[in-house]
Amino acid sequence: MTREITGFSNPLVKRVRSLREKKYRKQEGLFLAEGLRILTEAREAGRLPEMLFHAHEGASHPLAIALIAQMEAEGRDVIVTSADILSKISGKDNPQALVGVYRDQDVPLDAIDRTGSGLWIVAQSLRDPGNLGTILRTGDAVGAGGLILVDDCVDPFSVEAVRASMGALFTQAIVQCRWDAFLTWLRSGPGQLVGTSLRTDQDYQAPRYAAPTFLLVGNEAQGLPSAYEAECDLLVKIPMLGKADSLNAAVATAVMAYEIINQRRVRA
Amino acid sequence: MTREITGFSNPLVKRVRSLREKKYRKQEGLFLAEGLRILTEAREAGRLPEMLFHAHEGASHPLAIALIAQMEAEGRDVIVTSADILSKISGKDNPQALVGVYRDQDVPLDAIDRTGSGLWIVAQSLRDPGNLGTILRTGDAVGAGGLILVDDCVDPFSVEAVRASMGALFTQAIVQCRWDAFLTWLRSGPGQLVGTSLRTDQDYQAPRYAAPTFLLVGNEAQGLPSAYEAECDLLVKIPMLGKADSLNAAVATAVMAYEIINQRRVRA
Repeated sequence: MTREITGFSNPLVKRVRSLREKKYRKQEGLFLAEGLRILTEAREAGRLPEMLFHAHEGASHPLAIALIAQMEAEGRDVIVTSADILSKISGKDNPQALVGVYRDQDVPLDAIDRTGSGLWIVAQSLRDPGNLGTILRTGDAVGAGGLILVDDCVDPFSVEAVRASMGALFTQAIVQCRWDAFLTWLRSGPGQLVGTSLRTDQDYQAPRYAAPTFLLVGNEAQGLPSAYEAECDLLVKIPMLGKADSLNAAVATAVMAYEIINQRRVRA
Repeated sequence: MTREITGFSNPLVKRVRSLREKKYRKQEGLFLAEGLRILTEAREAGRLPEMLFHAHEGASHPLAIALIAQMEAEGRDVIVTSADILSKISGKDNPQALVGVYRDQDVPLDAIDRTGSGLWIVAQSLRDPGNLGTILRTGDAVGAGGLILVDDCVDPFSVEAVRASMGALFTQAIVQCRWDAFLTWLRSGPGQLVGTSLRTDQDYQAPRYAAPTFLLVGNEAQGLPSAYEAECDLLVKIPMLGKADSLNAAVATAVMAYEIINQRRVRA
């Protein structure tokens, strides 16, 4: 059903705006995604927003028209509003002309079909939402099954993480759990746990990785705790030829992930 | 010389604070770098700040003591100040305890010794300072000679780019130029220009890259203009196994850069 909202103090506008804060996302089980590109990725992955806000000019693109038509066919809320109210919701001066409100989608570890993919990314205490979103985007690109977030990671449903994921949030399974729970689950089935470390001499291109590989990525500043490294089946290092001793976390994840899939894929 | 500044309205505090804006950085030829880790990377690369601000507690680490001693030995300005004033300078609630003011360091194309490294990264109209800094950090890790910024890229001396570079800003040569000037210079000597593109079927692991390789990276949203692709000696694609059609720009750069150096390096 399409309706129009023009008032800044409309309670729904306030409620949706509050989803920029983690506390309210948790309470409501909802999060925001912005922009036609990301909303289209979601739709192609079979995910429709619970509510869709758009400015008048946001409904002109054929993909936006198709999205709105499907929302209406399914009896979902479509709200036409002003650019100013979209600004208020998104907290940006130049808001996207489309904002979707989605139900969040954590899955429990038990729901993961680990043999459904040869590669899973496991991030521990990741703090930067841009890194988290970028890792999701890379996960999609390498055909990973999903992202398992261990310990206190930044919220994958934050606006910044969703934006950096470029829609991969909707194609990757997302699990949030504690390390102990992850480890117990991991050891209950097949899976090789691989970490990158400064404390090994094993080059990352030396071993043959076994599927399903669980690629473990540590916190941006600290890397992996040594107790976590000790649980890995394999520790490897990415060569560093310069002065620095580490890569950005999302970059290191991608370099590792491409090595793993390059060992397995048939070249074009 | 060490002196103390306690007043918020001190003209030097205002002047340094203004360096968070590009206009003033250009005017002054100065930029800010924050935190002991980055300032130490700079020092190890032979770069000392023109001025150093620190809180009392910022001078306790041995590396900070060494930096301050060297500043004083060379007659440079060391300013002891409060956490509040450091907050004002850095624009952050929890500022780093050390802030350095550095002279900027663009080099002209003609000053580049292209055969001094087998790999150079060339970025075109890059817009995100985090991506730019991350690419510098990757450049350091792969032993690149430097980063050539073509057309209207984000300022490499912005606080965000400096921070994301984790000090690699001080180890990588940085050139800013127009595409035409770059191309004229490139073709005046040896060098293979390699771009990634969605419009090719050539897998990025198929060709043998020839040194010096100039790895050309396009704008985050648009990729490379087709006229720029047409100038490349080689166009390759990174395999995308999921729904998305592209990687984050800094991630794509790293995946390419590691392939190029992996072809050349001796494994550990």
